[in-house]
Amino acid sequence: MWGIIATWRMAVEGISEASELLENHGDAGAAIETAIRAVEDFEYYKSVGYGGLPNENMEVELDAAFMDGDTFDIGAVAAIKDFANPVSIAKRLSKEKVNCLLVGEGAEKFAHQEGFERKNMLTKRAKIHYKNRVKEVQNQTIKPYAGHDTVGMVCLDMNGKMTSATSTSGLFMKKKGRVGDSPIVGSGFYVDSHVGGASATGLGEDLMKGCISYEIVRLMKEGMHPQAACEKAVNDLEKTLIERRGSAGDLSLIAMNNKGEWGVATNIEGFSFAVATALQKPIVYLTKRVDGKCQHEEASQEWLDNYMKTRMAPLEEK
Amino acid sequence: MWGIIATWRMAVEGISEASELLENHGDAGAAIETAIRAVEDFEYYKSVGYGGLPNENMEVELDAAFMDGDTFDIGAVAAIKDFANPVSIAKRLSKEKVNCLLVGEGAEKFAHQEGFERKNMLTKRAKIHYKNRVKEVQNQTIKPYAGHDTVGMVCLDMNGKMTSATSTSGLFMKKKGRVGDSPIVGSGFYVDSHVGGASATGLGEDLMKGCISYEIVRLMKEGMHPQAACEKAVNDLEKTLIERRGSAGDLSLIAMNNKGEWGVATNIEGFSFAVATALQKPIVYLTKRVDGKCQHEEASQEWLDNYMKTRMAPLEEK
Repeated sequence: MWGIIATWRMAVEGISEASELLENHGDAGAAIETAIRAVEDFEYYKSVGYGGLPNENMEVELDAAFMDGDTFDIGAVAAIKDFANPVSIAKRLSKEKVNCLLVGEGAEKFAHQEGFERKNMLTKRAKIHYKNRVKEVQNQTIKPYAGHDTVGMVCLDMNGKMTSATSTSGLFMKKKGRVGDSPIVGSGFYVDSHVGGASATGLGEDLMKGCISYEIVRLMKEGMHPQAACEKAVNDLEKTLIERRGSAGDLSLIAMNNKGEWGVATNIEGFSFAVATALQKPIVYLTKRVDGKCQHEEASQEWLDNYMKTRMAPLEEK
Repeated sequence: MWGIIATWRMAVEGISEASELLENHGDAGAAIETAIRAVEDFEYYKSVGYGGLPNENMEVELDAAFMDGDTFDIGAVAAIKDFANPVSIAKRLSKEKVNCLLVGEGAEKFAHQEGFERKNMLTKRAKIHYKNRVKEVQNQTIKPYAGHDTVGMVCLDMNGKMTSATSTSGLFMKKKGRVGDSPIVGSGFYVDSHVGGASATGLGEDLMKGCISYEIVRLMKEGMHPQAACEKAVNDLEKTLIERRGSAGDLSLIAMNNKGEWGVATNIEGFSFAVATALQKPIVYLTKRVDGKCQHEEASQEWLDNYMKTRMAPLEEK
């Protein structure tokens, strides 16, 4: 068996590439890196890699992580600027015994010394988004923080090795140096090849309060199907946050176990995700929650066409 | 009931101060902050705050976190330079709805804007340690990474509110930007006032592989005593790491539940910790593991005298 599951529609091209590798006995480490890099490289996705939206200082600060479910090797970078593929730096760091999570300037220094090429990650389009948002916020027509579409994935290869990885530019207009759940083990991602893996997208500050990716893997270890594990973890955390804080931010989770079975749960409308396994070609699904259970429906051609049209529509400065 | 437990002997003066607050109906947030600040301010402790040992560039980069077990508010800073009390910046950040974990320059900018005073955290003594270590490493008489004595605490006040907090300068000679478990929720700390809290010290890169503080709180939620929960979590993680990686780094954990019962487990020799509750004055214990169980013994006056003498002994450049 092999399989790969990812948050959001934007991941489908990446997981299609990874599928070919996995079908040809490729490694789960290489496959997930390939899939995430495809998302990082596509400039029309506003929340990951090149074209990612900047922080309040108009700087694109990126977070990424990689975990190997065989060895528990973990590598991550946070608040790193001007490198094309943060996930590859994270994967490289996972080979170190210590100094595996690097932030800011230190992460940039490491990446440079390891031969990763610098790239100005602020696109013209991202700059227009930034300038428009500044005006909107000044006019108080919109809250500063919206849109946090991290790409997070879990991958299983034919040797039974599993990996998880994430990449994001984080909250649009975040404060300089802000780090969300994506590079934080247990919150943004977790994987154990003997069990399965999980990855998150949503409001990082709230996802972190429940160590939710770790919790989903733990529930799968107790024997739960990934779908049940995701639903229980999302529903429980949402309930706790509402009880203790009055409200809960966006929480969307994907998971896959070591048999290639998968599950997804969310507390928002319109969460999309993409899956491919030995048994199914890459498919984009939309999910909605009904009575605490999530129902997944294949995205229509119309929805898919419209998605790409919206992403690539001409953008004018207001 | 009230109580406070902390990693290492160095915490005892801090928890003594906190005890007085807690006995007089003080708040668990203020008490834990007071206790951690005392450790941060004492220049002879080499692994926390002022006098903390520097990274490979001779810069003191500090990590700290604060969590409120009532609301799950979390604040943390990582790789922050030149502020006296990182725990107070972390506590301040816990009041924000987003942007609660800040790293590097961004964290320094926030702290400065919030009126925290800058302080050169590199002491003369820390500089001598750095220079000596550089020579030792060049002579290959010692491995670069040794000593990672994070202060981590869990606190319960008379109103039943619980908090957890950490502060550290991290691995001596770490790479610039390296972040360990201390500011990472679920790994370095976790607390839920309905259950209890836990905090870690040891090799951050390995502690993170098990989200061990979260796991201990979860075990306590299932009804386990803090002592049993700590032992199970440490023994299980150590076993997994040895199975998957051939070895496990240092793992030392403290925990307290919402009844003021406490527990400690470690996989190293000579781990010390300090506890005070409504039922006992501040006491320093040493613990050792026998057949997977940890036995705690009150530190002798001789051990305590020797501890302080060693810490404050004159230091010569080699």
